[in-house]
Amino acid sequence: MKLVIGNKNYSSWSLRPWLAMSVAGIAFEEDLVPLDQPDTRTRLLARSPAAKVPILIDGDVTVWESLAILEYLAERFPDAGLWPADPAARAHARAISSEMHAGFSALRSACPMNLRKRFGWRDRGAEVTRDVARVQQLWSDCRRRFGHDGPFLFGDFTAADAMYAPVVARFDGYSIPVDEEAGAYMAAVMDLPAFRAWKAAGIVEPWVLDIDEVDEPAIAEAR
Amino acid sequence: MKLVIGNKNYSSWSLRPWLAMSVAGIAFEEDLVPLDQPDTRTRLLARSPAAKVPILIDGDVTVWESLAILEYLAERFPDAGLWPADPAARAHARAISSEMHAGFSALRSACPMNLRKRFGWRDRGAEVTRDVARVQQLWSDCRRRFGHDGPFLFGDFTAADAMYAPVVARFDGYSIPVDEEAGAYMAAVMDLPAFRAWKAAGIVEPWVLDIDEVDEPAIAEAR
Repeated sequence: MKLVIGNKNYSSWSLRPWLAMSVAGIAFEEDLVPLDQPDTRTRLLARSPAAKVPILIDGDVTVWESLAILEYLAERFPDAGLWPADPAARAHARAISSEMHAGFSALRSACPMNLRKRFGWRDRGAEVTRDVARVQQLWSDCRRRFGHDGPFLFGDFTAADAMYAPVVARFDGYSIPVDEEAGAYMAAVMDLPAFRAWKAAGIVEPWVLDIDEVDEPAIAEAR
Repeated sequence: MKLVIGNKNYSSWSLRPWLAMSVAGIAFEEDLVPLDQPDTRTRLLARSPAAKVPILIDGDVTVWESLAILEYLAERFPDAGLWPADPAARAHARAISSEMHAGFSALRSACPMNLRKRFGWRDRGAEVTRDVARVQQLWSDCRRRFGHDGPFLFGDFTAADAMYAPVVARFDGYSIPVDEEAGAYMAAVMDLPAFRAWKAAGIVEPWVLDIDEVDEPAIAEAR
């Protein structure tokens, strides 16, 4: 099984299935295609017609889109616990995962994932503020209903946490103020050995992508 | 089981699970909340914290986001055939459904679904052209691999067709030129009795939403 990913420093979509597979102990080979290079599109098109990372290749099956990959893995490895076992919790996990997959565009464009830098907090507009509030409400609601027996949204780590891991990285990297409960959740995600390994690999990558660099001074750089 | 939807004329997201449930013969009660009215947000918040349509309410379970609703229904009604039975086809169906769910933003914003009007073709920019080309490539690729035994993307109607039904309506309503194969697929979707019933109900709705009306003259109006 092979997972095609983009740069670890920047590719938030790639992080999602990579983290889910790593935490669940699903063995895979990694195929990193640096983004925004002259040959990137050609290299991705050779792997999937959508030409976007991440891509999972499992024999004859090629799956793209992070959420579709997670669904595929959940079916292929039913004992890996990628979705919560309880049907109501599972429905909720899929709803928040889809909400992430298609939403929060203001937050995503104002605060691109950039693991090697930390920026100071600043007001980035009403839409970003609304996205941040909704994410915290959604995390809190999840944990109140389903997550009281563990540090993650549904107690144990699931695909929903994988979907929100890049949001955690953004909240952390852009110094977004969060309440105590959200802070504890973020710490649990960032303390995952797999998350730490991804980040450590990302910050030493040689590529700097202008499209993912915000035009403001970093207050710290991890190099 | 209750499905909360927005205006049938405009709400492309609502059409998706409504069509899937209708075609699959899953009984449900319909709860239409007109969008962009003074009380819309309050009414939606009373139904789901994301305050967005569609919302499926099944006893204690509330699911939002069209894709999460489709996954929930596929689990709840395993014999309804919402996803293809073959694992490779199912993975492909989920990938193209996710690609729709999170993508094609240029097409979606340039050509909002507006069932009661038909507009003439015009060049709407390179990004829209790229979206249209990718959709046709994706439909063709699907039908070539999996759909040769029926009129839909995977032969029989699945959740993937439900996800693309509003794209069909946009291609039709904005007179977007398509190849013969895509045209035949679009006709199959638009000929579904459930699609025709949704459209007939949409065109006689009293509400006109400025946000979904493009600033150009319609060449035909269905009233």
